[in-house]
Amino acid sequence: MNNLSPPSLPSTMKAVVLLGPNRLEMRRIPVPSPGPDDVLIRVESCAICRSDLGMMEKPFPGQSPYGETILGHEYSGTVVALGDTVDEFEIGDRVTVEAHLGCGRCRNCRLGDYTSCLNYGNRAKGHRCNGHVTPGAYAQYVVNHINTVHKIPDSLSFDEASLVTNLGCVLYGIENLGGYIAGERVLVIGAGPLGLAAAAAANALSADKVYLSDVLADRLEVGKKIGVQRTIDASAEDPLEVILDDTKGLGVNYAIESSGTQAGLDLAVKATCRNGKILMLSIAHKPLKVDLENLSLDDKDIITNRGESRANVARAVSLLAKDRVDLRPLVTHGFPLDEYETALAVFRERKGGAVKVILHPQE
Amino acid sequence: MNNLSPPSLPSTMKAVVLLGPNRLEMRRIPVPSPGPDDVLIRVESCAICRSDLGMMEKPFPGQSPYGETILGHEYSGTVVALGDTVDEFEIGDRVTVEAHLGCGRCRNCRLGDYTSCLNYGNRAKGHRCNGHVTPGAYAQYVVNHINTVHKIPDSLSFDEASLVTNLGCVLYGIENLGGYIAGERVLVIGAGPLGLAAAAAANALSADKVYLSDVLADRLEVGKKIGVQRTIDASAEDPLEVILDDTKGLGVNYAIESSGTQAGLDLAVKATCRNGKILMLSIAHKPLKVDLENLSLDDKDIITNRGESRANVARAVSLLAKDRVDLRPLVTHGFPLDEYETALAVFRERKGGAVKVILHPQE
Amino acid sequence: MNNLSPPSLPSTMKAVVLLGPNRLEMRRIPVPSPGPDDVLIRVESCAICRSDLGMMEKPFPGQSPYGETILGHEYSGTVVALGDTVDEFEIGDRVTVEAHLGCGRCRNCRLGDYTSCLNYGNRAKGHRCNGHVTPGAYAQYVVNHINTVHKIPDSLSFDEASLVTNLGCVLYGIENLGGYIAGERVLVIGAGPLGLAAAAAANALSADKVYLSDVLADRLEVGKKIGVQRTIDASAEDPLEVILDDTKGLGVNYAIESSGTQAGLDLAVKATCRNGKILMLSIAHKPLKVDLENLSLDDKDIITNRGESRANVARAVSLLAKDRVDLRPLVTHGFPLDEYETALAVFRERKGGAVKVILHPQE
Amino acid sequence: MNNLSPPSLPSTMKAVVLLGPNRLEMRRIPVPSPGPDDVLIRVESCAICRSDLGMMEKPFPGQSPYGETILGHEYSGTVVALGDTVDEFEIGDRVTVEAHLGCGRCRNCRLGDYTSCLNYGNRAKGHRCNGHVTPGAYAQYVVNHINTVHKIPDSLSFDEASLVTNLGCVLYGIENLGGYIAGERVLVIGAGPLGLAAAAAANALSADKVYLSDVLADRLEVGKKIGVQRTIDASAEDPLEVILDDTKGLGVNYAIESSGTQAGLDLAVKATCRNGKILMLSIAHKPLKVDLENLSLDDKDIITNRGESRANVARAVSLLAKDRVDLRPLVTHGFPLDEYETALAVFRERKGGAVKVILHPQE
Repeated sequence: MNNLSPPSLPSTMKAVVLLGPNRLEMRRIPVPSPGPDDVLIRVESCAICRSDLGMMEKPFPGQSPYGETILGHEYSGTVVALGDTVDEFEIGDRVTVEAHLGCGRCRNCRLGDYTSCLNYGNRAKGHRCNGHVTPGAYAQYVVNHINTVHKIPDSLSFDEASLVTNLGCVLYGIENLGGYIAGERVLVIGAGPLGLAAAAAANALSADKVYLSDVLADRLEVGKKIGVQRTIDASAEDPLEVILDDTKGLGVNYAIESSGTQAGLDLAVKATCRNGKILMLSIAHKPLKVDLENLSLDDKDIITNRGESRANVARAVSLLAKDRVDLRPLVTHGFPLDEYETALAVFRERKGGAVKVILHPQE
Repeated sequence: MNNLSPPSLPSTMKAVVLLGPNRLEMRRIPVPSPGPDDVLIRVESCAICRSDLGMMEKPFPGQSPYGETILGHEYSGTVVALGDTVDEFEIGDRVTVEAHLGCGRCRNCRLGDYTSCLNYGNRAKGHRCNGHVTPGAYAQYVVNHINTVHKIPDSLSFDEASLVTNLGCVLYGIENLGGYIAGERVLVIGAGPLGLAAAAAANALSADKVYLSDVLADRLEVGKKIGVQRTIDASAEDPLEVILDDTKGLGVNYAIESSGTQAGLDLAVKATCRNGKILMLSIAHKPLKVDLENLSLDDKDIITNRGESRANVARAVSLLAKDRVDLRPLVTHGFPLDEYETALAVFRERKGGAVKVILHPQE
Repeated sequence: MNNLSPPSLPSTMKAVVLLGPNRLEMRRIPVPSPGPDDVLIRVESCAICRSDLGMMEKPFPGQSPYGETILGHEYSGTVVALGDTVDEFEIGDRVTVEAHLGCGRCRNCRLGDYTSCLNYGNRAKGHRCNGHVTPGAYAQYVVNHINTVHKIPDSLSFDEASLVTNLGCVLYGIENLGGYIAGERVLVIGAGPLGLAAAAAANALSADKVYLSDVLADRLEVGKKIGVQRTIDASAEDPLEVILDDTKGLGVNYAIESSGTQAGLDLAVKATCRNGKILMLSIAHKPLKVDLENLSLDDKDIITNRGESRANVARAVSLLAKDRVDLRPLVTHGFPLDEYETALAVFRERKGGAVKVILHPQE
Repeated sequence: MNNLSPPSLPSTMKAVVLLGPNRLEMRRIPVPSPGPDDVLIRVESCAICRSDLGMMEKPFPGQSPYGETILGHEYSGTVVALGDTVDEFEIGDRVTVEAHLGCGRCRNCRLGDYTSCLNYGNRAKGHRCNGHVTPGAYAQYVVNHINTVHKIPDSLSFDEASLVTNLGCVLYGIENLGGYIAGERVLVIGAGPLGLAAAAAANALSADKVYLSDVLADRLEVGKKIGVQRTIDASAEDPLEVILDDTKGLGVNYAIESSGTQAGLDLAVKATCRNGKILMLSIAHKPLKVDLENLSLDDKDIITNRGESRANVARAVSLLAKDRVDLRPLVTHGFPLDEYETALAVFRERKGGAVKVILHPQE
């Protein structure tokens, strides 16, 4: 650790540790030390992600053991210490992070697709995923490899910046669609955080028209705020009819599935034009039926999306920093870290129209 | 029609006309006349395709009316007359054809994806698909727009040349996978004509290793002749185990599904490595279950394939002409056009190990 | 011609005909008739392009003969008659156009790159380029194949719409760069109409930062209006220094050369980061020296750009229609067609800060 | 270093050290030790590369100091010791190597373009390039990070395997051209090692026809052995005429420039068809004149190529291992390391038709 680090750095910190299925406990543990290529971040904002709830319920592949697991992979803060080789950052830099550090030695990592690391979960070989494989930001301090850290300007709040991985995932998905959606029609199915970020990104890349379909009226309202031209309340109108009417029967060029449901997938298949593409942002937890005859006869592809590879978080930071994407309407609630139980309940039950709930470890 | 056409051209010809469901009849009808951008081809070889059987059974979308329908879209022959604007060909040229002529005015056609023409079946707007929308080559002569015609060298037999669309479809699929499979591992599932052509193409593009899985031993033997390094008799060994053993658990980079079955699709999903891709050459006629969780977590895409767009038949002609792909082992039977009923029966029932059965209208 | 066309269509029209080098004459000639796949457009706005001056000076390859040439390829207007097969448009539709119609039968056209048609200038084989190969819009009416026509909303003025090909060219160039410039740094060299359109497009696609370099202060002012974040007055500061200072010595990801000068090209090479790309929007009329050692050691490519292929004018129409790109600041002057001599002089000599000068044939 | 390494490993080795401009000396120095992610290789074959001569003459950017520099970056051998985290290799594995290890932390490395590492030459940040930045294989043992090591089968000789980086460079270039050259026409200009490897690779990827132009008859003979269909002796016939005659005036789809001369570049520009691409394998050491008007009007791009990024050496190993590319005809001479002075002279002066000259450090 670089000797320029301020002497005021405490030796212990508060952290919420996962001890067993749905058993969290606030503890005081040592502040971690950065390795040669790392920085230490004082966490200001950490957003709760739905996968946090999944990992509390049942460990994901690669998850660290109970007693060591600290959740939280969507966060932002301030650099407070530097590893020996680090000149890319300075102490005091305001930063946000991406979740995955690939091993750097498997084929996927070497080609830039590090969120599909073939050594996923293998810490000895260098893989990290804070808040899952390595300690995350339900804590006051976190160590990050510099590959996962991005500077943010003063104009960008820590809360909004903590959502950047959502946008990075979406942008990696859009890159996998071809990346060039200016003038194209895009339907987003499901107005959760990823779906909303997808709609905002499509708008920022000058899609011809962005449609957003959901059954939750308040989520659709958030969609309007972030640039959606046509919201579709699927409880009141048939999204497929809306799309076909509005496109003279052709359908959209890209359907982005973010609901994880059979109905969402069916809509994506039917609402996409010939030669169009479907992006799966959601992860369906059981096998779904797919009308492959429709896909094949109409030459439509299904593109999936794991994470935020190929430096798309850097693009995402730019879009937020320049205000081309505004994710502030997604930030509906904030709590001190001490109130993590309330925060998790608000998020889980979508109390008060909760979209993203932020923990503030320094409050 | 150009006045250089030989005086010997007859005024009528033999043609097998589709009169109703599975009702074919040999008739004598006028030899058609090429339009300004067309050539007239004297058909030497016309391969029977499985979709011919489908169209006999029940008309496909866009199919011409009973009494006008002449099947046969995989054929080769000799140019015998030229349209007024045609200087791309000369009378006497040996040629083969691709099936689809796009309308040239819809967005997909304008971008080169003419097999997904948005005016599919609309002859007034210029779309043609011989043997489906427009008359095909269960006949002695056919008119083709020059966009669908390719010269072949003397060294390439009419029989082998008639299979070129199969290879063109495969190459369009490979282009949609990214086009660059040198050094990659490829599994082909299903050793029908398209699957065999896919295996041959992957070999010609220097795939690291080509696996071919089927339950028919004679088809696997054909696979060995066209360059497959490892055939898998799925009735005797588990293809997934073979793949995982042989790739240290990683799986293949590309799985090409050509069986159209649930088992084939399941194998494709499981046998593909992280960040790999699945190409659907088959068209499944009922919805299949897809393990989207596996696809999403492992960042695998499903690419479908409609036809032979983007000039891939020109590539296919080159591969056949230079003997980089050898489709002769697929040509198992030939019959004069007069014996079309026998030919269809041999093909339908795979008599005598039939793979491709060729009609010879000039015999 | 469809019999729904209004009876009020005149039989003759005003047109400025090119009779010899720099010899233009206003004449009254017959209103042309649309073919089966064409529409007839009543021209409202036709922008003067620098290549018009070139064609007046000395015919371009493929240019129609003196006495038949009517210049003007950037125009917009109203559909007043329909060809027999046309149902894509209705009489009264407000439209703009793209310049090139490919032959549709060469390899480049078949792949969507129709502005590089291998039968360029061959009208018999179907190639057209209004205002160059076929009659243009220094006239009251023009015939266009429907592939070259795009509807525009009422909110888009004919003047702004007439500039759409500039934006279409730029977008084709950006597609050839990879299409995905969100979060990247872009330097545009030369603030002519194409350079300004490029800066506006880069901004609309959410580039991280758009730099624009020129020596003309009034052009840089236009740049600020269309979204440039940093203008560089090359007569007062060194553009390379500005770029390197602002990017910590790395350079921009993409340099778009639109000046056609040796200095512009040198700047593009030096100001681009390793693995970056240079887009040549300009056409240099003499060989330029290129530091290929720099390009090779730093893995930078030079991408050229001929025209507006691959349906990029449709994208451009969307960007204008949705106000994501605003080309109105480029429209500095307008004249009735009768005053074409004044209009050409204003454009040629850049009087009054002229950027784009528009002819109005109906005034 | 893993304790499984054989006790017989010597403590010192022979190495040819660069002491000053063109001052080499054979020395006995300690055998190096692998780091945690490294292997130690006993070198069997090390090919002399033209850039070795350049580095002897005058240090390249990033080159290690005199007295520490050991040249040689094209080599193969046997793994004799493993770093602590290495399970990807076993002692005794026959292997070949790629030259560059990126820093893994700059943007280019993170996207897979590690031969354009932004920390090139910065060993502290992890960049290595054996034989340039770090010690190479004019020595009996070398340390390699596992990212740069590839297993080879017994059927592949150490001599042929030592040339793999040449093929990897070529394949990275072909990937940058789009990767899909099946059925396309390719002209290679200059029959040096890279040009010959390019011709062999184009052939292995099923190019329609591969042309190779040079003035050295013996090099063209090597070309014939590795699959070139048409050699062009530029001292006896005009390569441009040959190409245009053979392609009906269209030109080739891809020209690969490997001569580094003005004449070679001019030929590449003129011999390429509209919408074609030029790949610069050579590095021209002074600015060349480029006819950008031709390039722009015909929409041709210039793609450069730095090194062997994106795992193309893995592809290259497959092509050699499966005998799809045969580089043995390039191996014209071999010498024990002790005779390095003779070897360098033979290579420099192309004595006895020398193409590649191999050092054997264990002889």
